[in-house]
Amino acid sequence: MLELVDPCQKVKKQEYKNVFPTLEQKLAACQRAARAAGIPVIIVFEGWHAAGKGMVINSLAQVLDPRGFRVHLTLPRNEEEKRHPWMWRFWNRIPGAGEIAIFDHSWYQRVLDDFAEGRISKKEFRQAIADILEFERQLADAGTLIVKFWLHIDPRVQKKRLKALASSPATRWKVSPEQWKQNKKYKKWFNLANQVLEATSTFQNPWQIVEAHQARFTRLKVFRTLISKIEQEAQRRSKQLAEPPSPMPEPREDELLRPTILDRVDLTQSLERGQYEKELRGLQKALYELEHRCHLAQVPVVIVFEGWDAAGKGGVIKRLTRGLDPRGYEVVPIGPPTAEEKAHHYLWRFWRRLPKTGHITIFDRSWYGRVLVERVEGFCREEEWQRAFREINEFEKQLADFGTVVIKFWLHIDPDEQLRRFQARQSDPNKQWKITEEDWRNRSKWRQYEVAVTQMLERTSTTYAPWTVVEANCKLFARIKALRTVKERLEAAVS
Amino acid sequence: MLELVDPCQKVKKQEYKNVFPTLEQKLAACQRAARAAGIPVIIVFEGWHAAGKGMVINSLAQVLDPRGFRVHLTLPRNEEEKRHPWMWRFWNRIPGAGEIAIFDHSWYQRVLDDFAEGRISKKEFRQAIADILEFERQLADAGTLIVKFWLHIDPRVQKKRLKALASSPATRWKVSPEQWKQNKKYKKWFNLANQVLEATSTFQNPWQIVEAHQARFTRLKVFRTLISKIEQEAQRRSKQLAEPPSPMPEPREDELLRPTILDRVDLTQSLERGQYEKELRGLQKALYELEHRCHLAQVPVVIVFEGWDAAGKGGVIKRLTRGLDPRGYEVVPIGPPTAEEKAHHYLWRFWRRLPKTGHITIFDRSWYGRVLVERVEGFCREEEWQRAFREINEFEKQLADFGTVVIKFWLHIDPDEQLRRFQARQSDPNKQWKITEEDWRNRSKWRQYEVAVTQMLERTSTTYAPWTVVEANCKLFARIKALRTVKERLEAAVS
Repeated sequence: MLELVDPCQKVKKQEYKNVFPTLEQKLAACQRAARAAGIPVIIVFEGWHAAGKGMVINSLAQVLDPRGFRVHLTLPRNEEEKRHPWMWRFWNRIPGAGEIAIFDHSWYQRVLDDFAEGRISKKEFRQAIADILEFERQLADAGTLIVKFWLHIDPRVQKKRLKALASSPATRWKVSPEQWKQNKKYKKWFNLANQVLEATSTFQNPWQIVEAHQARFTRLKVFRTLISKIEQEAQRRSKQLAEPPSPMPEPREDELLRPTILDRVDLTQSLERGQYEKELRGLQKALYELEHRCHLAQVPVVIVFEGWDAAGKGGVIKRLTRGLDPRGYEVVPIGPPTAEEKAHHYLWRFWRRLPKTGHITIFDRSWYGRVLVERVEGFCREEEWQRAFREINEFEKQLADFGTVVIKFWLHIDPDEQLRRFQARQSDPNKQWKITEEDWRNRSKWRQYEVAVTQMLERTSTTYAPWTVVEANCKLFARIKALRTVKERLEAAVS
Repeated sequence: MLELVDPCQKVKKQEYKNVFPTLEQKLAACQRAARAAGIPVIIVFEGWHAAGKGMVINSLAQVLDPRGFRVHLTLPRNEEEKRHPWMWRFWNRIPGAGEIAIFDHSWYQRVLDDFAEGRISKKEFRQAIADILEFERQLADAGTLIVKFWLHIDPRVQKKRLKALASSPATRWKVSPEQWKQNKKYKKWFNLANQVLEATSTFQNPWQIVEAHQARFTRLKVFRTLISKIEQEAQRRSKQLAEPPSPMPEPREDELLRPTILDRVDLTQSLERGQYEKELRGLQKALYELEHRCHLAQVPVVIVFEGWDAAGKGGVIKRLTRGLDPRGYEVVPIGPPTAEEKAHHYLWRFWRRLPKTGHITIFDRSWYGRVLVERVEGFCREEEWQRAFREINEFEKQLADFGTVVIKFWLHIDPDEQLRRFQARQSDPNKQWKITEEDWRNRSKWRQYEVAVTQMLERTSTTYAPWTVVEANCKLFARIKALRTVKERLEAAVS
C-alpha cells in the first residue's frame, strides 16, 4: 500500500488560505451532524515518528467542540491493563453515540511497535491482527464510523525532523531512542507497516494514507477525508429506513427439528437431601482451594448463568459463592441497560466488567440477553441478533486466548415445574418479592424462548467456551451439577 | 476505647446453634429491606492481624444475596491511585442506593499501617484523620449507613494464631513479616489504634469493638450489630416525612444586601479586536508551555466554568483548549445526572472524573449545580444544598492538599445582554441549535439565580480555590481575562 505513495505532495500557501477556513467550518458542522445522528466516531492516527500526528490532532482540537471529543494517547500498558485481555483498554475507550474518540496511536501499537521491538511473538502478531479485524468490524457493524490515518514520510525527512527536534532544548524530550531506531531501520519498519496496513485495510474500514511532508497538505487531506466520511455516514443513516424491530412471532411447529437439545434433557434426574448435603460440603471445600490456586496461577475466570425464570440461578450462585473467598470473586447482575450503556456497543458493558487475572466474575444473566430477551421482545433488529452469535463467539474466544476460563450454564426446567414454582412463590410471603408481572409475561412466550435458547446453544457452544445444560427440575441436583462443573473446569485450568 | 475491652468473651456452642440461624435469616431480610429503602450500606472491617476479618466476611458472604454486595480488599495503592488524592479510590467504590460495600481494610489503612510503618508523616496523619471524618460525615449525611468494626484480640492469642498459620503449608502465605512485627510491637500498635478509634468514633459513625477471641462470639456480635443498625436506619427512613423539595420562590427585594458581589462587577469593560488577537496569541503560546511544565512537575489542574446561559462559557473553553496539547487535557460537560449517578452521593461523579497528576480537567458546569440549578429548581432539599457549601469546600480542600490547582470562573453578564444574545442565536440558522426552551425558563428565574449565585460566591471562594468573576458582556474581554487567570495560576504553581 505504501510503495507508490509519494509523500512530497504540497499545496500552495494562498490556495490553503482560501480553502482551509471553509473546511474548519464544515468539520465543526460535521461534528454537530454526527451528534444529532448519534454516530460514534473513532479517528485513529498512526504513522512514522515525527510525521506530524500531534500537529494534526492539535488542528482538529482547535476546530471541534471540546465537549464532544476526547484524545486518547496510547502508552505502554499499565499494571491493570496487563491483567486483562489486550483489547480491554480500547473497549473501555470506545465513544458513545454522537461522541468522537481520537486515538494518538491505538491498538495498532501492538502489531507495529510491540512486534518490531520483539515484545510479542509471530503467533501473537497473527492473533492480534485477527483481534483487530474483529474489533473494528464489530464496531462498524453497530454503526461506529472508524477513520484510520497513516501519516507517511520518507526516511530522509524523518531524519531531518528528528534532528531538528533534538537540537532544541524545548523539544528534545520528544525524541526517544526508539524513534532514532525506527529511522535507522526504516526499510524493515516500512515492510512491517505495509504488511499491517494491507492486512487491516478492509472494505468497511480502509486506511487513509496521508502524504505528510508538508503540514498544510497533511491538514487539508485529513480534514477533507473526515468531512466526506462523516457526511456520507450521516447521509447513509438519514436514508436508512428506520424500521422499528418487532417482537418474535410465535414460532411454527416445524421451526425446530425435534428432538432439540432441550427436548433431550433428562429432567427426571434428582438427588436426595442427604447425598446433596454431603456432596455440597465436599465441593465447596474443593472450590475454596481451587479459587486460591487460580489466584496464585493468575487465571481469570468468567462464569455465566442463564436459564428460565425461576430455574434457580440465584440458588446456585449462592451455593457457589458460599464455597469461595469473597475477596476473590464478584457477582454482576445484568438488568436492562442504562442510558449510557445503550449509547455504546452492546458488548461494552461486559468488557468493562471482566475479571482481572486471578479473579472470578459471575454474571447473573449476560451478553446472551442479545439473542434471548432482546431477540424475543424485539429490542434489537434481526440483523443485530443474527450478527451477535458470531460476535459473542469472537468475544469469548478473545477471553479464552488470554487464558480466561469461560464457564456457561443454561438452567433448564419444564413449563409445569416453572408454574409450580411461580405459584409457590406467590403463596409464600417471604418469596413474593421474587415474582413479578414480567415473569408471567415471559412465561407466555415460552415457545419463542425455546427457539431462541435452542439456537443460542447450538451456535455459541464452542470448544473454548462450551455450554453446560443443567437439569434443574430438582434444585439439589442442579446445584451439585453446576458446582461440580465449575470444580472440574478450574481443576483442568490449574493442573 | 480499647483499654477496658475483654477480648475473651465467649458463647456456648448450643446457645450459638439455637440463635445463629435466626440471625442469618434476619440479616438476609435486612439486605432486602435496605435495597427496598434504597439505603447504601458500608461495612468496614479493621482490627489486629489474625483477628478473624476474613472469617467474618466469609460468614456475611454466605448469607447475603451475592447480587447485592461487593467485597473490597484494600491493598497498597497502585500507580493510578497514587496519581489521585488518596481518598479517590474509596470514593470510586462507594455503594449506590440499596447496595452493600464490605471493606476488608479501608481508608483506615493510611492512619494505621501507613503511619505505623512510617510511610506518612505526623502532619499527613492529622490531615488524613480530618479527611476521614469529612468523608464519613458527607456520606452519612446523604443517607449512607456506615458500620465500622474493630476486631480485637490480645497479643498472646495473636501470637498463637500467627504461629498456627505459619506452621501449615496451606496457610503460610497468609503470614507476612508485617504481621509478626505488629505482634512484637503490640503495645505501640495498641496506642495508635486507640488514638485512631477515639478520633474517628463519632456520634454519627461510631466504631463497634468486637471481642474476637472466639469465632462464634465474633460472628454473633457482628451479625447482631448489623441487623440492629440496618433495622434502625430502615425504620428512621420510613418515619421520615418524605416532603418533596420545592423550587425556590421569587426572592424578596431585601433578600440580598446591595450592592452584591455581582452588582459591583463592572460590565462596561471591553477590549477591541486588534488588541484581543494579539493578547490571545501570546496567552495561548504561554499556556502551551505551561501545560508542558505542569506535566513535567506532575501538577493536576481542575478548571471550572460556571455562568449565566449564553455568557460565553463554550467560547472561552474553545480559546483555552486551542492553546493546549489535546493529549494533556479533557473537557467534561456536566448535564443532568444519569440514573446511576443519582443512586450515588452527588459528589461521586466528580470524584470519578478528577485529573491524574500532570493532567488538566476542564468542567463545563460542575458540582456547583447543587447550589445553583438544583437549589433553584427544587431538585434537592434545603438541608442538602445548605450542607453542600461546606461539602464543596471540603472537596476542593482535599484537591488542593493533594497539590491540585483549582481554578473557578463565574462568567457574568446582565439580563439585557443575555436577551440580545438569545435573540441573535434565534435569528442565526447556524446558532439556533444553541438555544432551547430551558434557556428561556432559566431566564425567567434570573432573580432566584442572582441570590443563589451571590451566596455561592460568598461561601465557596476560598484561599485554596478562589472564584474569579469574569466581566463577560464583552466576549473578547472575558476570554482574555479567563485565559490570563489560568496562565497566572499555572505559573504560580510551577514556579
